[in-house]
Amino acid sequence: MSDVENRLLAEIFAIRAIDCHSHVPPESPHAQTLGDLLGYHYYTELAHSAGMPADAVDLRKSDLERMTEIVARLDTISNTIQYSWLMEAARELFAFHAERLTPSNWTELAQVVAEAARKKDRYLAVLAKANIEKVFLTNRFDEDLSAIDRTVFVPCLRTDDLVFQLADAEVRRRLAAKTGVEVGSSGDLRDAVGWLMRYFTQAGAGAAAISLPPDFSPQAPDEKAAQKALARAAGGKALSAAEGQALAIFAFDVIAGACRQFRKPFQLMIGVLRNVYPAGVAGGQDLLSKRGSLADYADLFRRYPDVDFTVSVLSMTWAHELTTFAWIFPNVKPSGHWWYANIPAHIEYDLRARLESLPKVKLIGYYSDMYKVEFGLPKFNMYRRVLARVLAREFVETRRLSERQALEVATLLLRENPKRIFGV
Amino acid sequence: MSDVENRLLAEIFAIRAIDCHSHVPPESPHAQTLGDLLGYHYYTELAHSAGMPADAVDLRKSDLERMTEIVARLDTISNTIQYSWLMEAARELFAFHAERLTPSNWTELAQVVAEAARKKDRYLAVLAKANIEKVFLTNRFDEDLSAIDRTVFVPCLRTDDLVFQLADAEVRRRLAAKTGVEVGSSGDLRDAVGWLMRYFTQAGAGAAAISLPPDFSPQAPDEKAAQKALARAAGGKALSAAEGQALAIFAFDVIAGACRQFRKPFQLMIGVLRNVYPAGVAGGQDLLSKRGSLADYADLFRRYPDVDFTVSVLSMTWAHELTTFAWIFPNVKPSGHWWYANIPAHIEYDLRARLESLPKVKLIGYYSDMYKVEFGLPKFNMYRRVLARVLAREFVETRRLSERQALEVATLLLRENPKRIFGV
Amino acid sequence: MSDVENRLLAEIFAIRAIDCHSHVPPESPHAQTLGDLLGYHYYTELAHSAGMPADAVDLRKSDLERMTEIVARLDTISNTIQYSWLMEAARELFAFHAERLTPSNWTELAQVVAEAARKKDRYLAVLAKANIEKVFLTNRFDEDLSAIDRTVFVPCLRTDDLVFQLADAEVRRRLAAKTGVEVGSSGDLRDAVGWLMRYFTQAGAGAAAISLPPDFSPQAPDEKAAQKALARAAGGKALSAAEGQALAIFAFDVIAGACRQFRKPFQLMIGVLRNVYPAGVAGGQDLLSKRGSLADYADLFRRYPDVDFTVSVLSMTWAHELTTFAWIFPNVKPSGHWWYANIPAHIEYDLRARLESLPKVKLIGYYSDMYKVEFGLPKFNMYRRVLARVLAREFVETRRLSERQALEVATLLLRENPKRIFGV
Repeated sequence: MSDVENRLLAEIFAIRAIDCHSHVPPESPHAQTLGDLLGYHYYTELAHSAGMPADAVDLRKSDLERMTEIVARLDTISNTIQYSWLMEAARELFAFHAERLTPSNWTELAQVVAEAARKKDRYLAVLAKANIEKVFLTNRFDEDLSAIDRTVFVPCLRTDDLVFQLADAEVRRRLAAKTGVEVGSSGDLRDAVGWLMRYFTQAGAGAAAISLPPDFSPQAPDEKAAQKALARAAGGKALSAAEGQALAIFAFDVIAGACRQFRKPFQLMIGVLRNVYPAGVAGGQDLLSKRGSLADYADLFRRYPDVDFTVSVLSMTWAHELTTFAWIFPNVKPSGHWWYANIPAHIEYDLRARLESLPKVKLIGYYSDMYKVEFGLPKFNMYRRVLARVLAREFVETRRLSERQALEVATLLLRENPKRIFGV
Repeated sequence: MSDVENRLLAEIFAIRAIDCHSHVPPESPHAQTLGDLLGYHYYTELAHSAGMPADAVDLRKSDLERMTEIVARLDTISNTIQYSWLMEAARELFAFHAERLTPSNWTELAQVVAEAARKKDRYLAVLAKANIEKVFLTNRFDEDLSAIDRTVFVPCLRTDDLVFQLADAEVRRRLAAKTGVEVGSSGDLRDAVGWLMRYFTQAGAGAAAISLPPDFSPQAPDEKAAQKALARAAGGKALSAAEGQALAIFAFDVIAGACRQFRKPFQLMIGVLRNVYPAGVAGGQDLLSKRGSLADYADLFRRYPDVDFTVSVLSMTWAHELTTFAWIFPNVKPSGHWWYANIPAHIEYDLRARLESLPKVKLIGYYSDMYKVEFGLPKFNMYRRVLARVLAREFVETRRLSERQALEVATLLLRENPKRIFGV
Repeated sequence: MSDVENRLLAEIFAIRAIDCHSHVPPESPHAQTLGDLLGYHYYTELAHSAGMPADAVDLRKSDLERMTEIVARLDTISNTIQYSWLMEAARELFAFHAERLTPSNWTELAQVVAEAARKKDRYLAVLAKANIEKVFLTNRFDEDLSAIDRTVFVPCLRTDDLVFQLADAEVRRRLAAKTGVEVGSSGDLRDAVGWLMRYFTQAGAGAAAISLPPDFSPQAPDEKAAQKALARAAGGKALSAAEGQALAIFAFDVIAGACRQFRKPFQLMIGVLRNVYPAGVAGGQDLLSKRGSLADYADLFRRYPDVDFTVSVLSMTWAHELTTFAWIFPNVKPSGHWWYANIPAHIEYDLRARLESLPKVKLIGYYSDMYKVEFGLPKFNMYRRVLARVLAREFVETRRLSERQALEVATLLLRENPKRIFGV
């Protein structure tokens, strides 16, 4: 590592980051046990990928049984970046300095995790150590937001159910219970979504968010078709694929409209194929497809010029499209490096392309996507290292930016841009 | 930068390049004002992408107003490679040595640009400084080629209108005015295109060129269907999508045939989606799609084995196909790094792959795609730097080529191959 | 090259590799003449790509004529990695130390090759020098396996004909001649394939293997439709595209079932378009397409959880899908870097991604795909160098693995994983 890279990295570690997408449960943000860390889907799915039976970590088993199984397999994945997240969290947050986590030493770590969990406001200490100021949540539309610790957490309205499960009576029942609106018509849906966006906005929400399959195409909606589909669903009838699609496209559009009305960004996370491998471990059953194109979103971006779409793509084949669409559309903001694209090889290539061709003021560098705050530190550190490397090698050492300017760019990506774009 | 890379770069700067694709207007090849440089679509579209309203640079505004707006936004894009082109041009061509171009210093540069513009044959000095020997133009089919300075400029027949706008009466009128052929039949079209190719060839043209949408598929044409479509168009009728397509495929084939007859390469620039963002700035409304496949061009490459197709692709997802098709088809020649693929991250990866797997004698290294000669220097310099890096790191330092051999490769890419392939 | 990389490379050279895919003819595994090396399709196709007429290397010409033609063109491809394979083989296996192979020195090499060919068991010496312990073959289903030197060669059942040519009477005749089963029904096909798998297993086969076009979609078969297609074919009738597809999908499924029964991996090599350029040289007529998706294979991977699918993809646009599917599916094992993806630029990017995100115990590092054993050395050496670079730069120097651990990973990829997965 060159001196420039070293200096930059030290400064980048000192930037207080905003984490604009996570799945942290606000009522239990930090790990209570080592099992809460080892149970992260990356470890269970990779151990399964390497040969562990899926039922070895069945959720009906005890925490102890599951931990034992995973630890026994950790050596098979010790090369992965995900393993390095675990070890860095253990080292930096729990002062666990063994080189590897093994069947003969894991109980030590388990004890330290359990002890730390009992410390008051442990999650605040963890986030402080990670140098993360705010962490966005991903809240169900009918979640109670009142108990959230707003000093560090920012609510975010997850809209997947509203778009793709609206034909489900239970979803409409939950929606009615929350908003008071029995959704039987397209107008009702607008009312209910409006109610939710107001509620979330008042609770300090940073955005609406949705994950989308690779073949979703958010065209201008056919409200009559959606109306008809909604009526059929309300009447207890199953929808055809076409009806389901008309309804999803309409509901998606209603949410985009509400984002405009309430001036909130819409986080689009594009490309996931759900339930591709139902025999997999919990959280390890979804995949991606390289099919589809961001060109299908152009109509949406045109129709909502005043909504910020912060976009993540799951397939690396979409990366170039995302960069170029963000290059041309003012309201498209590339956001982080998501899930299957969240490894250094892909981040480095993609980040370099974004930094070389997009305005620095519209790049959202990174988010953790974590389920427990402990992973904020190693995931953000991974990104900080890649960022330092790309800035040093491609910008400072080639004299396109001074070190000071490079650091300014890093500050925008990690902190200033998400603050400004999400209004936190 | 290693010593090897440094030495190679110095030698590569000394290679007199051929620039085989640009949009330089022969009657006004160099910038008259700083506005001619700042008005390059990269600056207006990136400033707009970063938040500047598109109408801030409306062409009805004065040069001064537009320059003021763009300069005010330059800081937002100071990380981009495009910004570095601007600053390198300012430094090397106008002796402007400020680190950044800002609202407080831009008038100095504007003054130097305006003064330089008045020097006799300024464009020749600019190209000499860039070490570029010849610059290809992109001429409308009815452009007057007689006034072109053939000491540095090479005409090139742009055929987009002939392929995709032939149903437009105005295009046929222009065609008739130029060639004397009223195109009402497929035979007429052959005559008119033959006339144009002869005219361009006599004027020293280097090639025919066309940009193509990602879903274009140049199959063997159905001449009867094209004939019928042409007759309908001549009769003032609007064409269906299928008719329009049949006509485009036929016209494309006629041009390929004329390239064979007149022994000219056909520059295919594949992948642009036009007018995706009509609310954007001038020149900043087109994008790309990752859909489509070079496999759809195999039939063309088979049918015209004696035509050199110099091919550029806009989407990085097509890069591997281009490399492999050039590997197998003698008449497919990868050409430069186009537009949205023209940033170092993509050039470096793509260039390395081409150099590792394709005969050195068929690679066309680079072209500027510029609108004013001033951008030849920084764009070619960007490429020269990437080329030096790839040759040094992957070829010389790994002992697969000596420095002398690496330099030979660079000379082929920048100069000898385009000279031989385009016959200049 | 850093000290770490140097040390790692030395150790990686010392790993005795397993080469799990080649086209070596067991009756003539090493080159008899220099023509056997220069006739490798990479040299003929690249020389043709650079301008040599295809008939210059027509197989009806003499070895001498063809060698002369190819040598005359070698300079045009001296930059390619394929050329460096040739020179490394010449240097390391034939003590030929000229910097380039030219019209004035090639007869010296030809003489050494011819002399070496006469040494007893020359191929064993070649493989020893390459540090390769076992080489898999690709055997026709009716090949005689009895004469194979099982000390170094491992048979492998090539199933392309069984899946895609079953409607061909000659293929069914060959199948009946080998297995004694006249295939007229779906049950017959099961019997015949079962017979073959037993025969190959008894002969020590490592796997079944198949190459697949990019649009193949191995769904659950419709046995009735396949039965009907088979009956029509047996009756001498030509099959429609749909019938051919139904038959192929069924036959593919029968083979997957036989792999399960006989506990053999199924090598899937996905993405080749055959005969895209029929006017090309022998072996240089196939290409690829970026279309298709591994998502179409998810159903197969779900239905055969106990079959190891060792998967290679031909198009780099599939690389991310392969990595992610191997991440989630225990039975998907990424295998090597195939053909058009087998150049350092692609290997380096792809290998880094696999190493950063997949369990080390399921990666099959490399195979040679060679036709003569002489290419095992330079091809594996190319891979060993990339592997050393990636492990040094991304793992050891970033302190994610110690040198010892990195070497362990290398040993898994080159030796232990293929040994375990293929049971050799």
